[in-house]
Amino acid sequence: MNTLETIHSRRSIRAFTPEPIPEDLLRQVLQAGVASASGGNVQPWGFVLVRSPVRLAALRSLAPGIIGLPTAVIAICLDSPRASRLGGAGGEDLAWLDIGLATQNLLLAAHSLGLGACPIGSFHLQGVVTFLGLPPGVQPVLLLALGFPAVTPLPPGRRALSDVCFEGEWGRPYE
Amino acid sequence: MNTLETIHSRRSIRAFTPEPIPEDLLRQVLQAGVASASGGNVQPWGFVLVRSPVRLAALRSLAPGIIGLPTAVIAICLDSPRASRLGGAGGEDLAWLDIGLATQNLLLAAHSLGLGACPIGSFHLQGVVTFLGLPPGVQPVLLLALGFPAVTPLPPGRRALSDVCFEGEWGRPYE
Repeated sequence: MNTLETIHSRRSIRAFTPEPIPEDLLRQVLQAGVASASGGNVQPWGFVLVRSPVRLAALRSLAPGIIGLPTAVIAICLDSPRASRLGGAGGEDLAWLDIGLATQNLLLAAHSLGLGACPIGSFHLQGVVTFLGLPPGVQPVLLLALGFPAVTPLPPGRRALSDVCFEGEWGRPYE
Repeated sequence: MNTLETIHSRRSIRAFTPEPIPEDLLRQVLQAGVASASGGNVQPWGFVLVRSPVRLAALRSLAPGIIGLPTAVIAICLDSPRASRLGGAGGEDLAWLDIGLATQNLLLAAHSLGLGACPIGSFHLQGVVTFLGLPPGVQPVLLLALGFPAVTPLPPGRRALSDVCFEGEWGRPYE
């Protein structure tokens, strides 16, 4: 799928069919995350794939934000020890930015492959840390629910270009 | 350009030709930023386009991170008042994530249109705030240098999939 088309047609998918995700699609989604840019190429992340039905059910019980029944979840984790070690001062804020860069790659890769995804921030933090066996300092930032879309919602609406984009200085609308 | 190809072939471009960026390409890049997902659809951002040669030269003097001569810069700003007002508690960290999502859209849109870009975090914060006339609480997070690429660097290398992606729990490599 064409890149701009992917960017504009992507929606947050919360309802999934039961069809499992083929291995090669999962791999391509993960590879897109791994390929992401990061400040200083620090790559301060780890991606934990959960897809066994038993583990998925347990994870759902820790994450009220997961509404539908995804056939896989990718826990997008911030590796703070790595960010601090390699990213220097202020590494932490920048690492959140990096997690955002990688998340968008995962979302766009999934959509371009016909999958649906939704990043979820509502979960029991300590419960998920324990469940995933995360080492000290590594935290789950988002749970990416993943599967084939059962329902594609309407566009949620965005702010107007002239409300968000400025020419030369803040407050002078770009039109 | 195909989405996965765009994701994998994108590089940070720091050297640009003097050729100006056509208006419709700039607009498509900005539209990709505006179209980005954000937590709760808060869209806690503003994008300030700087492209007049005089303003660009002044901005470069505030940003040692801008190495080459981009023909445009998009200042990607975090609108914290908006994030706090609409994003609720913890809105600030999540807003950094949102800025990352939008930045990746800008980067991929630029690359898919034949432009080169590089997000730059090294600049004089207060100087840029003043220069762009940012209102209280709005901060520049990244300066996106933009132009037609003069030099495309080699891939910087990424961590191996099995080093970053785990199956079921942290430490059990996905292969």
